[in-house]
Amino acid sequence: MGKSSINVGIIGFGTVGTGTARILLNNRSEIERRIGFPVVLKRIADINVRADRGIGLPGGMLVSDVSLLINDPEIDIIVELIGGIHPAKEFILSALKKGKHAVTANKALLATEGSALFEAAKKNNVSIGFEAAVAGGIPIIKVVRESLAGDRIKSVYGIINGTSNYILTKMTDEGVDFGIALKEAQSLGYAEADPAFDIEGIDSAHKIAILASLCYGLPFSFKKIYTQGITAITPADIQFATEFGYKIKLLAIAKQSGKEVEVRVHPTMLPREYLISNVNGVRNAIYLESDSAGPALYYGSGAGEMPTGNAVVSDIIDIARDIRGGSQRITGLGMPQNPGVKMKKMEDVLTSYYLRLSALDKPGVLSKISGILGKHNISIKSMIQKGRDRKAVPVVMMTHKAREKDMAKALREINRLPSVAKKTVYIRVEGEEN
Amino acid sequence: MGKSSINVGIIGFGTVGTGTARILLNNRSEIERRIGFPVVLKRIADINVRADRGIGLPGGMLVSDVSLLINDPEIDIIVELIGGIHPAKEFILSALKKGKHAVTANKALLATEGSALFEAAKKNNVSIGFEAAVAGGIPIIKVVRESLAGDRIKSVYGIINGTSNYILTKMTDEGVDFGIALKEAQSLGYAEADPAFDIEGIDSAHKIAILASLCYGLPFSFKKIYTQGITAITPADIQFATEFGYKIKLLAIAKQSGKEVEVRVHPTMLPREYLISNVNGVRNAIYLESDSAGPALYYGSGAGEMPTGNAVVSDIIDIARDIRGGSQRITGLGMPQNPGVKMKKMEDVLTSYYLRLSALDKPGVLSKISGILGKHNISIKSMIQKGRDRKAVPVVMMTHKAREKDMAKALREINRLPSVAKKTVYIRVEGEEN
Repeated sequence: MGKSSINVGIIGFGTVGTGTARILLNNRSEIERRIGFPVVLKRIADINVRADRGIGLPGGMLVSDVSLLINDPEIDIIVELIGGIHPAKEFILSALKKGKHAVTANKALLATEGSALFEAAKKNNVSIGFEAAVAGGIPIIKVVRESLAGDRIKSVYGIINGTSNYILTKMTDEGVDFGIALKEAQSLGYAEADPAFDIEGIDSAHKIAILASLCYGLPFSFKKIYTQGITAITPADIQFATEFGYKIKLLAIAKQSGKEVEVRVHPTMLPREYLISNVNGVRNAIYLESDSAGPALYYGSGAGEMPTGNAVVSDIIDIARDIRGGSQRITGLGMPQNPGVKMKKMEDVLTSYYLRLSALDKPGVLSKISGILGKHNISIKSMIQKGRDRKAVPVVMMTHKAREKDMAKALREINRLPSVAKKTVYIRVEGEEN
Repeated sequence: MGKSSINVGIIGFGTVGTGTARILLNNRSEIERRIGFPVVLKRIADINVRADRGIGLPGGMLVSDVSLLINDPEIDIIVELIGGIHPAKEFILSALKKGKHAVTANKALLATEGSALFEAAKKNNVSIGFEAAVAGGIPIIKVVRESLAGDRIKSVYGIINGTSNYILTKMTDEGVDFGIALKEAQSLGYAEADPAFDIEGIDSAHKIAILASLCYGLPFSFKKIYTQGITAITPADIQFATEFGYKIKLLAIAKQSGKEVEVRVHPTMLPREYLISNVNGVRNAIYLESDSAGPALYYGSGAGEMPTGNAVVSDIIDIARDIRGGSQRITGLGMPQNPGVKMKKMEDVLTSYYLRLSALDKPGVLSKISGILGKHNISIKSMIQKGRDRKAVPVVMMTHKAREKDMAKALREINRLPSVAKKTVYIRVEGEEN
């Protein structure tokens, strides 16, 4: 039966660390009732041992020296919650080498150094739990790894950055512009003082890198992911999207096509009747379509002390059950790679587009624009020209599916036309057979 | 490391059995790549060994004698997919006694005989997988049991009968009455020739019995669950619901209040902006709120050959990983009961109500009705009286929260009034602080 209790050490006593400690301490007897043995929080390490986190700890539990955890033979599971690449990576690697299992919420670390970490785990025959790294309140890692272990995943579409979704929701509901919505998000604590990480799509790209690796066995390749944020979205585009029957969401997408996998993050127009189009505010959702299980949507909190803490605790409990059962099941918790797949080049991706042109209202302009599109194999599905009174009027169109590379060429030509007053805005469209 | 391959026997080669076999046979090498060892379908038993299921089986795999599976020492996991109570129960019990693990999609069996089955599994130190018994395409059993193992679940609201949801969606979208929507569902194969099981809420009650046991440790007690189907819902009520900003869904509800758990199935009005209100057609969804993870919604297919087959396969893989790992983890797959909780009596449940009265349009009628409600501690939140031209006009009202017992008494008195022409229609309302 292995050990009678499983001991845990937490590195990093910030928001998620506090949530994790709170659950392990407050729900200890309930967890024991459910799983049949105790999971004990033995030690927490943080450089700041004085700040009040609003939680009472037994004396001596909080220390500043990480080695007291990593070198403690009684600790079975090390939880890394300090974030960033260094020294998080080194802490996890030392723990793995000591034969300890690791749990982390560190998406940036996994997205960039995941392959090395999972290799080290495999070598030491221990596991790495990372449910908390992608959409804390949604158990998507477990769903993919276990519930869909016998299935083939066709596509994943995620609203996996709460900050961006809050801003887009506010812009949509109130018609305000990006700057105002961002300030509101900051004042509510939903966006950092430096929000680049969230609004430029980097955070979403970290998470979809992890999901793409998990779903398709694609090597971790965060840097190759096409990433476009939401800073250029205007109330005008949201208004036009509404007129066409769409909502604009920052989507992280991973999709298999043959031996290649598309992975990309960008603002996306989605038919407004889709369930995922109605996921609002800071909430996250992941839509996933697979061969056998069919379409599915998982919705919940994306971040926060308690949801993310709960994800960390669910990993701890899974690993504790394995240790306690004397299981070698841990290889099943690895990240099996599939050498047969590779990432599709963005220029080869096919999508539909929304285009907003500022065209001078003169005869022949539209025919010139549609001529250029046609030359590059892009066909127009629908078009609206707004007003006739000003010098440059917005011309808005939806295209059928076209190749990224062709669209890039066409837009370059169109933007050079003397009758086109401003750079053409484009937003990719998903979810229609076109 | 235990055995090199895990062998599976399926009893029942109907829709779900065929889906399960299809996945195990077609995805065999992909499953092996992901989990590291083969899962082998060794035998299928069915009384009909001749029907063409559109799937090619190796010679000798399909037999009519169940004992060839149960007595085969090489078979590790018996999958029961024949449905019904007998002989499904006996087959599972014999398999458990032989030290085999069991997987079942049989909700009726679990809801009524679950306690005996889980006890037998515990005694024989084997596990019972039942992901397929509740909303096949949604891994809700795993989510509750594993992802929320350290959390406290406050409430569960499920659209877990696709037939009823299809009928209500059709009635809502097209304004047709129940009978027409049912016929359409039958012609599409979404409803049985005898649809009572689905439309009377019994199927939903089976599933919520399982969820309530899993979430709260409540003993299986299907027969005590208050169950009301959708046969009395009229287009008029759907129309009024829309006017008040609601949708009508057949909800299965389990909710903790103190040491008691409410468990009930009935048509329910939900604010239309809720995500779950927008779950349409035959799809299922489960909204779950817990202390740490917060609000979450899981959406997917509720039934069908492949989604349910996938759920069966995910249980097979979980158990196979445990066997292969030599784990004693199986006690964690049991159904730990909590002797501290019991089911709340329906008469003590508090909800808000929608009431539709047929009142003769005479002075004083409304004051009499509201007087009776007031006497029974029921206060009116809003009211619409429709038209003044006919003899009996519909009076529609929404109440604040009231006790079931009080409402029953009030309705009895109201229905006895000479100025009330027909029996008052009532629909419970969820999701508002009232």
